[in-house]
Amino acid sequence: MMILVLNSGSSSVKYQLFNMDSGEVLASGLVERIAESVGAIKHKRWPGTQKEESFSAEMPVADHKAALMLVVDRLIGSETGVIADASEIKAIGHRIVQGGAYFSAPTLVDDSVVEKLREIIPIGPLHNPGHIAGIETAKVLFPGVPQVVVIDTAFHQTMPPEAYLYPLPYDLCKELRIRRYGFHGTSHAYVAGKAAEFLGRKMEETSVITIHLGNGCSMDAVKRGRCVDTSMGLTPLAGLMMGTRCGDIDPAILPFLAANKGLSMQELDTLMNKESGLKGICGVNDMRDIHARRKAGDERAELAFRMFCYRVKHYIGAYLAVMGECEAIVFTAGIGENDSEARAQACAGLEFLGIVMDEKANASAPRGRECEISAPGSRIKVLVVPTNEELAIAKQTEAVIKALGT
Amino acid sequence: MMILVLNSGSSSVKYQLFNMDSGEVLASGLVERIAESVGAIKHKRWPGTQKEESFSAEMPVADHKAALMLVVDRLIGSETGVIADASEIKAIGHRIVQGGAYFSAPTLVDDSVVEKLREIIPIGPLHNPGHIAGIETAKVLFPGVPQVVVIDTAFHQTMPPEAYLYPLPYDLCKELRIRRYGFHGTSHAYVAGKAAEFLGRKMEETSVITIHLGNGCSMDAVKRGRCVDTSMGLTPLAGLMMGTRCGDIDPAILPFLAANKGLSMQELDTLMNKESGLKGICGVNDMRDIHARRKAGDERAELAFRMFCYRVKHYIGAYLAVMGECEAIVFTAGIGENDSEARAQACAGLEFLGIVMDEKANASAPRGRECEISAPGSRIKVLVVPTNEELAIAKQTEAVIKALGT
Repeated sequence: MMILVLNSGSSSVKYQLFNMDSGEVLASGLVERIAESVGAIKHKRWPGTQKEESFSAEMPVADHKAALMLVVDRLIGSETGVIADASEIKAIGHRIVQGGAYFSAPTLVDDSVVEKLREIIPIGPLHNPGHIAGIETAKVLFPGVPQVVVIDTAFHQTMPPEAYLYPLPYDLCKELRIRRYGFHGTSHAYVAGKAAEFLGRKMEETSVITIHLGNGCSMDAVKRGRCVDTSMGLTPLAGLMMGTRCGDIDPAILPFLAANKGLSMQELDTLMNKESGLKGICGVNDMRDIHARRKAGDERAELAFRMFCYRVKHYIGAYLAVMGECEAIVFTAGIGENDSEARAQACAGLEFLGIVMDEKANASAPRGRECEISAPGSRIKVLVVPTNEELAIAKQTEAVIKALGT
Repeated sequence: MMILVLNSGSSSVKYQLFNMDSGEVLASGLVERIAESVGAIKHKRWPGTQKEESFSAEMPVADHKAALMLVVDRLIGSETGVIADASEIKAIGHRIVQGGAYFSAPTLVDDSVVEKLREIIPIGPLHNPGHIAGIETAKVLFPGVPQVVVIDTAFHQTMPPEAYLYPLPYDLCKELRIRRYGFHGTSHAYVAGKAAEFLGRKMEETSVITIHLGNGCSMDAVKRGRCVDTSMGLTPLAGLMMGTRCGDIDPAILPFLAANKGLSMQELDTLMNKESGLKGICGVNDMRDIHARRKAGDERAELAFRMFCYRVKHYIGAYLAVMGECEAIVFTAGIGENDSEARAQACAGLEFLGIVMDEKANASAPRGRECEISAPGSRIKVLVVPTNEELAIAKQTEAVIKALGT
């Protein structure tokens, strides 16, 4: 079965085409700057294989329909294509960032789904309009093809109220749907499942802390297969320190900055989301650059690195406590999978809680596959598990479609 | 030696007179509504003893000088007094909320101290002006009597940068002195010392987590006698859920509320500080009322209680992780000392981290003195230690004065 995975944003569309039978990614790409004067498409066929080919082009892309037509054109084009006809695509899986409290599982798209996504635009203002445009356009371009929404917040819907509610006026929160939703849920669920598999256990009998460290960073407490807490909140700003996002701070810093620096709410929002995190401390937000600077003796880069890892350690402890049990701590995503120094620093000194790293295993962890990096005697294992959100979306989409047929 | 402890706020002055030789509190009281049309003084002599007497009166109190004159009048008056003459007071200890990064120990007041307190008014706008008025007035009314500032933020000055810095733009934070200061430091230091004593250990060889749960709530990670992290931040809003304060929330909730509800920064500040916490969830902010409502089946009160304890548990785990060692968890202040249910709930399920409560010992913990409430085999002990900030201030003041004489 061919499944097209779409991540349709406000001004861009990312895509991957999967052959679910062979497990291959046939093509992937990105259309960007939709509705700007000059847009662009980057397309790869057979990505990650020896015969990978890349194509890129610039042109105006009027709207999401034009974007998706471009994608179809690349997928079937004689020069760039991997399939003969769009009708070979049997299902479309959409990555959705904000599903509010409506969705706790991947869901077949019908009118009521679009309705709900529209209704919760206030809590997903940057993402949901683009998602809706993607779904409605795909409906036109792929008539009759089932579409499935796979939602970033769904995995977190199992949190208990004491974890997801904020101690703000209750009725106000209810009215405006203010609560902890959490994001990266598809990734957390995927790596939690993979980790259980790696340990030879059932997911529903395995408690893990999943640590997704990419440009955005979040952590989940996954108790016996169910998320019980997550570090992001109403928005993806909360929790860990990230590339350019501050994560948790004293919220009274906002009135303080407004009073002392005359910053507007919009400026504060931008400051917290775009000018903070690693970048705010040392000027760069890519951890590889930070390591290069640290090695050159840059104190600010060293500080940014330590602050970043310190906050991960804080949450490891917190989630051990709220779960009351834990088989493994699982690192994933760009930094989590590739940065042995960050992993070592985040887990340093946790021996007393039953977490003992194997320095050598950590330093030599292979790229792209699951491995254990804790010492043989470690009560809580430490794992590296590569995430693959697109594959997870494709698989969940397939599962929904297959369930339909039964 | 007689020592007068003052907590001089913007519109109130709290006081206690100690006889350091006998350890007695001779008198205590509160002047309130300074500079309003009608002020008041509440005064007790021999408080907490069998011969305790209370006096209260209303009258206009023009300013801090008038307030302090009233205090002296009560202390020496024939009806209300406990000393014959103000000259018996040999030192004055001031509770100071915000000392910025200037003070890491109790300090004898001279002009430069007042200068520094004035300089950091922007980071202590609600407290420092009142503190300064108290110091300057005391200088006039008690000429030649040494004054000592005992500072809430001092104990936290040993935190490492990764704990006290925020991942916001570095230069902006430096310019405006934005960092984690933490509060309740005098209390945390006092109970950490008492806990070590109770365990028969030296404070500098004992690592504890101190949990101050009063109307304001905060936690400290105290590693071998030195604070390494604390839950309050730039302001006393951050960290735990409190009576009316929200503690940690996704900071992006502020722009969200401004955009969706039209709240101003001032309104948001008030909402977070006065309308949130326990009160925000269930309408009341006194934990005793909450227990009464829980027992009557009030779901919102149950929720508030669970949220409150959940956040304490989160920080217990986090501080175990950042310290990497811990001999004891120490509950103190109104709720911490008296609420066995909150203590039980906060520590429930932590057996796996080495914390095993003794249900009976917890439920029957005596009021007003140190006790252990963990099970005999618990790797990390759980203690209740009554705090006494005023006594701590008096003792630190005495120590500074005595060091002068040497």
